[in-house]
Amino acid sequence: MADVKELMSTPVGVVRDPGFFKKVKGVNVITGTRATGIDRTAKRVTLVDTQSGKTTTIEYDRLILSMGSMPVVPPFKNITLQNIFTVKGIEDARTLKEKAAAGKRVFIVGAGLIGIEIAEALAMKGLHVTLAEMKEQILPGILDPEIAMLVVKHLREKGVEVLTSCKVEGFTGAAMVEKVLTDHGEAPADLVVLAIGVSPNTAMARDAGLEIGATRAIAVDEHMRTSDPAIFACGDCCESAHIVSGQKVYLPLGSTANKQGRVAGINAAGGEAVFAGVLGTTILRVFDINVGKTGLTETAARSYGYEVETVLSPAPDRAHFFPGAKPITLKLVADKKTGKVLGVQATGPGAVDKRIDTAVAAITFGATAEQLSQLDLAYAPPFASAMDNLVVAADILKNKLCGEAKGISPLEVRKKTKRGEDFLFLDVRSPGEHAEVRITGTQLVPLGMLRERLQELPRDKEIIAFCKMSLRGYEAQKILEAAGFSDVKFMDGGVLAWPYELEQ
Amino acid sequence: MADVKELMSTPVGVVRDPGFFKKVKGVNVITGTRATGIDRTAKRVTLVDTQSGKTTTIEYDRLILSMGSMPVVPPFKNITLQNIFTVKGIEDARTLKEKAAAGKRVFIVGAGLIGIEIAEALAMKGLHVTLAEMKEQILPGILDPEIAMLVVKHLREKGVEVLTSCKVEGFTGAAMVEKVLTDHGEAPADLVVLAIGVSPNTAMARDAGLEIGATRAIAVDEHMRTSDPAIFACGDCCESAHIVSGQKVYLPLGSTANKQGRVAGINAAGGEAVFAGVLGTTILRVFDINVGKTGLTETAARSYGYEVETVLSPAPDRAHFFPGAKPITLKLVADKKTGKVLGVQATGPGAVDKRIDTAVAAITFGATAEQLSQLDLAYAPPFASAMDNLVVAADILKNKLCGEAKGISPLEVRKKTKRGEDFLFLDVRSPGEHAEVRITGTQLVPLGMLRERLQELPRDKEIIAFCKMSLRGYEAQKILEAAGFSDVKFMDGGVLAWPYELEQ
Repeated sequence: MADVKELMSTPVGVVRDPGFFKKVKGVNVITGTRATGIDRTAKRVTLVDTQSGKTTTIEYDRLILSMGSMPVVPPFKNITLQNIFTVKGIEDARTLKEKAAAGKRVFIVGAGLIGIEIAEALAMKGLHVTLAEMKEQILPGILDPEIAMLVVKHLREKGVEVLTSCKVEGFTGAAMVEKVLTDHGEAPADLVVLAIGVSPNTAMARDAGLEIGATRAIAVDEHMRTSDPAIFACGDCCESAHIVSGQKVYLPLGSTANKQGRVAGINAAGGEAVFAGVLGTTILRVFDINVGKTGLTETAARSYGYEVETVLSPAPDRAHFFPGAKPITLKLVADKKTGKVLGVQATGPGAVDKRIDTAVAAITFGATAEQLSQLDLAYAPPFASAMDNLVVAADILKNKLCGEAKGISPLEVRKKTKRGEDFLFLDVRSPGEHAEVRITGTQLVPLGMLRERLQELPRDKEIIAFCKMSLRGYEAQKILEAAGFSDVKFMDGGVLAWPYELEQ
Repeated sequence: MADVKELMSTPVGVVRDPGFFKKVKGVNVITGTRATGIDRTAKRVTLVDTQSGKTTTIEYDRLILSMGSMPVVPPFKNITLQNIFTVKGIEDARTLKEKAAAGKRVFIVGAGLIGIEIAEALAMKGLHVTLAEMKEQILPGILDPEIAMLVVKHLREKGVEVLTSCKVEGFTGAAMVEKVLTDHGEAPADLVVLAIGVSPNTAMARDAGLEIGATRAIAVDEHMRTSDPAIFACGDCCESAHIVSGQKVYLPLGSTANKQGRVAGINAAGGEAVFAGVLGTTILRVFDINVGKTGLTETAARSYGYEVETVLSPAPDRAHFFPGAKPITLKLVADKKTGKVLGVQATGPGAVDKRIDTAVAAITFGATAEQLSQLDLAYAPPFASAMDNLVVAADILKNKLCGEAKGISPLEVRKKTKRGEDFLFLDVRSPGEHAEVRITGTQLVPLGMLRERLQELPRDKEIIAFCKMSLRGYEAQKILEAAGFSDVKFMDGGVLAWPYELEQ
């Protein structure tokens, strides 16, 4: 972007400053002024001029709070050293950009959306980037571990050092930060970025006695009305209802803020509008891959008590013979009882956003795997395969839900190996594919030879078949079951979704 | 594509020939053989070897018909001249490709999907392309006229001559075609491509006494079962039910054939599967733009008796400040009574396919404009604006449905002008935008000046305001109404959706 002014402009280049709001919308915008308190009885807000310190008041019939959020800054040791940043707003971004010279070492605390976006931006500027996350995986709450591991693989390929289960304790340095202290030891750093998350600005609402939710954001009903009927709230300062779980959540996002603002505005002006809630939809670009999610992760679904079925399905994002086709890996999570799709995750260089948005619409309306598999999605080779990635993944999910397909996740297979369990890890790809790249400890019997070579396979052992994506793995399961083998599964997603090391 | 074999291959490069089907699937594939008749009583199909002419029979418990379709070839005068082609299958494409040398003149009969795709391919090879359509617009049945006109604009920019309302009557030439005879006169041509559409191969089904639908394709129920319970049909030879209209339709497409084949296969094998129907989803790339549609067009919706509201909404396909953002124009069609979205059309260089697929999922579940506007779609600047194109369009639709926004389509405005109606055609863009490009016969009052210059505007005349996209046009309507003007509208889609000529 050439100019930060574009961020404040309409798509046709009109800058949305106070003059614009007055002339075009007839709206008074008061800047350089802090609201410090609400007198709900007198229906009055106290304002302080940030330059002169002069106090005034302004009366309201209806009040809308859109106070946003603040970066979380834990009480780390020596947090006040120079070159430790948070990033919220245009000024922060500008300062960080000035300091970020190629060759410098930057340590980013927190591998959520903001942390990863900053890691990408600074790595592309030539800095040495370390990204540290306290939790066991990056993008916690957004992705399930096996999808997060695919993203970590990509970050590492791009030169970003990724540390998980790494707790930052503080910093050392003279005037400027020099080292980061963690429970894993020290790391030298010229710059530190705190990207731990944001918390809602609720102080004024709390002081005024408005109800604060369990999420610690301002509680609102579906009309965006707070516990005071004359006061509405919207955006990063308030909570939302999750469409799938029905739970209140705090998920501050620009797209949600826009919708909530519209609802709050209509209702405050005497209209009637309802905010439908959120699905926790998230998307980001990480170097050459896209990462997206909507609805519940497997982790979240299990925590809410759902019994879930899942599928990992990698495939090209358009007809595989069309130039520019790029792979994406989908994860679908469904409720075993109802067959309803609870959530979708996707990652890869291909068109992740299309599948996520399609899933958003489907999940909003409570689509089952069956219904998802039957969507009449747009097909032409430049855009999709005749069977879109979502359709294929939903078909696999259906086969699993009805017991036809017996999958096992790569995480479970890894655990079996680590526990020393005895099973046949059967690679049914072609010899050519096997020569290129292999998973350690597997045995090769190409699918086309399987019917002829059954006698080579053990009948008293669990067999886990896989291929590149999972289709031939599933076919192997069916062939072996038909031949009387009793304990056969296929590994979800095959080599493409294997988040561990491969033999080249 | 390097090799047509890729079209017959799985995504990992396995060629799906008879050997593959036998080894991997245990399926016997008989080639070089024509099925010529069904004896439903004996449950027997007659087969003829296409080389030897030898007749055999094969018995069935369940029979699946997937006989496809044939190009329509009307009885044009001199249809048998050389260099008149239809395009169905790999061989046709190969022959046409061999003949298509740069500089030659090709005349394409029919501006549907296939006609346009061939026009693009041959124009890019340097041929002089004429695309002729009998109906008043290209892509009839797929797009409404004002969207089709935007596509025509683009085809003409790329050098394709487009003729609508042009009826081909025949051809002249010695051995090879030399001229095309139409009701508009003659056109010289070195090559002719007939792309008039396809008709289902039903002869054998008809001869066997199976029910043929009003669409002239094989009638099937939702289990893909024909009127004979032991016989199923799928793909281009049979009809489908339309999810919105409930009507039977004939819409042969690869994506539909895949889903139907799965359902027919499961049911024929004793399982239980249902085909949910189609939305008539269509997508194509035309040079630098994408064109898509799902559900009902306005034309189709009106023909089914719906009272409809529509919106035309052009906007960038991602955050306007993000490099690579490209415009798309959406058209939404809704049922005035229920607010349900009946159909979506989209065109432009941007990500049309994402909006169409999202609309597919929404329309499948009967989404209203309100529900569409609240979808928690994925937002990050590389992928979308905070308010996605679909959300913005649905918001305008809501405003129209409740009477807040009063729109008029560019087609209606044009008709008013042609009828010589007296109205003020008010351009509320900036002087800079106006200097670049203008609609003839309009008056400029930039939105920011409108409140100050009200006295310049007539109170006794209809006013139709517009801007680049339609947002400021709508704001002008609200400002003028608030100032007491009683007959104010805005023109849908503004300059970006104006399908007629512009002053530069």
